[in-house]
Amino acid sequence: MGISERRERERDQTRAKIMNAARDMFAREGYDAVSMRKIAEAVEYSPTAIYVHFKDKEALFGEMCREDFARLSDAFRELARIEDPVERIRRLGQSYVRFATQYPNHYRLMFMTPHSHLPKDEMQCSKGNPDEDGYAFLRAAVMEAIAQDRFRSEFSDVELATQTLWAMAHGIASLQITKGDESWFNWRPIEERAKVGLEAILRGILADVKLIVPPRKMRKAGVR
Amino acid sequence: MGISERRERERDQTRAKIMNAARDMFAREGYDAVSMRKIAEAVEYSPTAIYVHFKDKEALFGEMCREDFARLSDAFRELARIEDPVERIRRLGQSYVRFATQYPNHYRLMFMTPHSHLPKDEMQCSKGNPDEDGYAFLRAAVMEAIAQDRFRSEFSDVELATQTLWAMAHGIASLQITKGDESWFNWRPIEERAKVGLEAILRGILADVKLIVPPRKMRKAGVR
Repeated sequence: MGISERRERERDQTRAKIMNAARDMFAREGYDAVSMRKIAEAVEYSPTAIYVHFKDKEALFGEMCREDFARLSDAFRELARIEDPVERIRRLGQSYVRFATQYPNHYRLMFMTPHSHLPKDEMQCSKGNPDEDGYAFLRAAVMEAIAQDRFRSEFSDVELATQTLWAMAHGIASLQITKGDESWFNWRPIEERAKVGLEAILRGILADVKLIVPPRKMRKAGVR
Repeated sequence: MGISERRERERDQTRAKIMNAARDMFAREGYDAVSMRKIAEAVEYSPTAIYVHFKDKEALFGEMCREDFARLSDAFRELARIEDPVERIRRLGQSYVRFATQYPNHYRLMFMTPHSHLPKDEMQCSKGNPDEDGYAFLRAAVMEAIAQDRFRSEFSDVELATQTLWAMAHGIASLQITKGDESWFNWRPIEERAKVGLEAILRGILADVKLIVPPRKMRKAGVR
């Protein structure tokens, strides 16, 4: 490994270390309560050293946020191959809830914390094309499902259908993060809640719940 | 009005003023970042004066939390009269989302903030009987619906059904609070999202979506 390569790796490791510490602190104390000075203290750097890597707190948050959304997209990418859009939506929901339970601090900052106080550039860290952005990815699958007449007529509005499906997955994920350890709720296992909840919302949206196979295929096969 | 009556009213007003300031600060800065001293500053009291009303931050949070859950219960109470449990569940969901949009700071502290770091007494501020506790209220309606064979068989588990319905309402409410002002999502109006989303999850849970009238009544009326 050359010197410049090693330097770059060290630089990446330092940035990752700073971002990990910052993520924990943001999730625990809230965005406003955390300063660059406090983050520097947590990783035992001087305040000056941390500014070498991030010009200010907003820039640090923005980069962390972009990294976290990229990680979610990685989880989604393999699902792009699933041909049936309804099956893709189902698996997307499961993968989304799994991400939230594996990375609760990431999830809290991505989806449970307002970004509207951030500068516009940083706020839009989650906006992108289907390759990078979970919402766009789900929306694309919903669009396909609508085009195949798989959804009930009130869900012919692609935004409304996308937002309804997202709300279900988000509700399951975020209750788990906020309330999952309050034992008097007598929680059913999160895997069961995710499976049954996502199944129920799909059942509520689908025009014909018996149509597991897309209608086009069925027509081809002479089923209809 | 007698002197003691007036004193009590003034005392209540002072407590309410402190709790309102504290609620805004908790919601904005996070529980940990807010101190009794900061709250006193915000209402322009001396730190000593605030301790006359609340023995510490945990006690203040606990009382605020109990008040907020009582307010939610007030919104639910009139729904207790609705005889049909499925209709009651539907209206409960709408009322819940309306509460969240009307009182976003209350909602954030009640349902979007972990309470597990609080002393046990304060943490359990939301636990109670159906008269006081939203979860218990929903659960009681779900139990009735199950007893009337209104739900599909996988929802014969009262906790799982309650948790699924709650997740849907919470997902709609909390996405609105966190992401509702991020305009690129092209949000449909919250009222529409609530109506359509709650309808869809009920449709996914109900054994027979055409059974608006409870089966018992239908039997009595000789429909079956």
